[in-house]
Amino acid sequence: MVTYEDIEAAHSRIDAYVEWTPVFVSESLNRLVGAELFFKCENLQKTGSFKFRGATNAIRCMDEETLAKGVATHSSGNHAAALARAAREAGTRCFLVMPTNAPKTKLAAAQYYGGEVYHCKPTLEAREKALQEVLAKTGAVFVAPYNNEDVIAGQGTCGLEMMNQNPALDMVLTPIGGGGLTGGVSVAVKELSPETRIIAVEPAGADDAFRSFKAGKIIPSENPTTIADGLLTSLGEKTFPLIQQHVNDIVTVNDDAIVEAMGLIFQRLKLVVEPSAAVPLAAVLADKVDVDQCRVGIILSGGNTDLDKLPW
Amino acid sequence: MVTYEDIEAAHSRIDAYVEWTPVFVSESLNRLVGAELFFKCENLQKTGSFKFRGATNAIRCMDEETLAKGVATHSSGNHAAALARAAREAGTRCFLVMPTNAPKTKLAAAQYYGGEVYHCKPTLEAREKALQEVLAKTGAVFVAPYNNEDVIAGQGTCGLEMMNQNPALDMVLTPIGGGGLTGGVSVAVKELSPETRIIAVEPAGADDAFRSFKAGKIIPSENPTTIADGLLTSLGEKTFPLIQQHVNDIVTVNDDAIVEAMGLIFQRLKLVVEPSAAVPLAAVLADKVDVDQCRVGIILSGGNTDLDKLPW
Repeated sequence: MVTYEDIEAAHSRIDAYVEWTPVFVSESLNRLVGAELFFKCENLQKTGSFKFRGATNAIRCMDEETLAKGVATHSSGNHAAALARAAREAGTRCFLVMPTNAPKTKLAAAQYYGGEVYHCKPTLEAREKALQEVLAKTGAVFVAPYNNEDVIAGQGTCGLEMMNQNPALDMVLTPIGGGGLTGGVSVAVKELSPETRIIAVEPAGADDAFRSFKAGKIIPSENPTTIADGLLTSLGEKTFPLIQQHVNDIVTVNDDAIVEAMGLIFQRLKLVVEPSAAVPLAAVLADKVDVDQCRVGIILSGGNTDLDKLPW
Repeated sequence: MVTYEDIEAAHSRIDAYVEWTPVFVSESLNRLVGAELFFKCENLQKTGSFKFRGATNAIRCMDEETLAKGVATHSSGNHAAALARAAREAGTRCFLVMPTNAPKTKLAAAQYYGGEVYHCKPTLEAREKALQEVLAKTGAVFVAPYNNEDVIAGQGTCGLEMMNQNPALDMVLTPIGGGGLTGGVSVAVKELSPETRIIAVEPAGADDAFRSFKAGKIIPSENPTTIADGLLTSLGEKTFPLIQQHVNDIVTVNDDAIVEAMGLIFQRLKLVVEPSAAVPLAAVLADKVDVDQCRVGIILSGGNTDLDKLPW
């Protein structure tokens, strides 16, 4: 299991490569919800999402011989671009299996950073098969999007930073998909501030983490659908135990609430975010989490969205 | 004429009320244009635009007796919201004449901050007449959107800040409408760094500043049309001399270039800006300004735009 020491080590390892992202506040949003909200702007991270932290840590953990083989992954988006950029900065190749329905902004970003893209049908089976073919053909090393301890430790640095920027948070809200961000961040937050509550928020249409958390065992999603395209994945065996141990609760929100929250973030914070990043604020707006008079950290996970398909 | 001392005094006067806005950079935009661009984020200023600087300075220059009368102005948008908030913070009333075609986001903001709005037809004559009626009825003090030295000095604090944040700029690009921002900023920049070139950029469909600058006399716009709704106004007699004295050149851009620049700012900087704020970058993209290898300050003047009417 990933420990706080892993996250501290990751932080030292990647600090020269990643941004310390700023924390934004909005008086009008605070007034609207009756709480103090602190938005950790991972949409302003390199490659436009927190995924660059984990990808960079995973790559910087490799020895020269391993790194020289190149890296590969499957991803519908942000992990692909993050791994491509981290690989390029470390001087190696990156092979990417991406589904044909990946947002075009995310595909373009992956290619912009030098990723070599293989398209596959948007099913789990097609993705796995394509990945195995790419690995066999290239000899590259697989870097899983979240079910990888180096990746989880890298994502955790976001929590470490946030608690240094705003130490007295009563609560931290994270979006949850595969659990890499939530797993890593929860380890960091609970170490630095055991009383801070961690609430993970999930789209109702992709609620495997919610159901798994309640059932006490991993129950993968089947045909998840949500506008939050970064949160379609299911928990993995490396993330679920962290979430069981550190997360206080998981709640779900519907897509209408996500769109409303996304609009408010554009309007009040003047920040471009993708739907997945708006999921935690959606839980506040929809009264799924009681934040009354609390100091609440919210991770804006990413900002890569097709601007000609904004959902309003 | 507004002097650098006026701007320094304004800075001391309003520092407790306004944000020191951050400066954003984007490696990918720098690569795209072959220069180092420094974006001064006035879209993140209170009320979402630089106008809060000038409005706050004008109000904080008033003695108690004057202030108690309330303030009034005409504006299609950002100056209205800025004056309303500055008035509320200073404990006085604010009366606003706004044209019926003002962007609804800007109207909503003015009302949100407690502005008392009187609607008028979107013509210069209707606006002047409505304003005179409001002034007669309320006894409030008129605070002009740009043709007012306290307002100009307040806007100049944006330039003072920017030169402290990034001292070695070769060039500063400002959007120009009535000239309050450009006038104030140019005084500050030329005092702090006489070699820095100041280029004002104007929409081709509202090019009175361009024509006035070339002719050496004020030539007001007639029926200006541009997507940059904040730049429809014409220069005033308090701003034009500053621009004649300090601005190196004025160039124009068409609306297509403005839309392209606006999209790039959303996509690469993850920032929400209004069309007027994209005008300077449009000039770079359209090769209207030679920025090759230069360090270029660009003022992102505001972020108040109707998100359901984005121009792409």
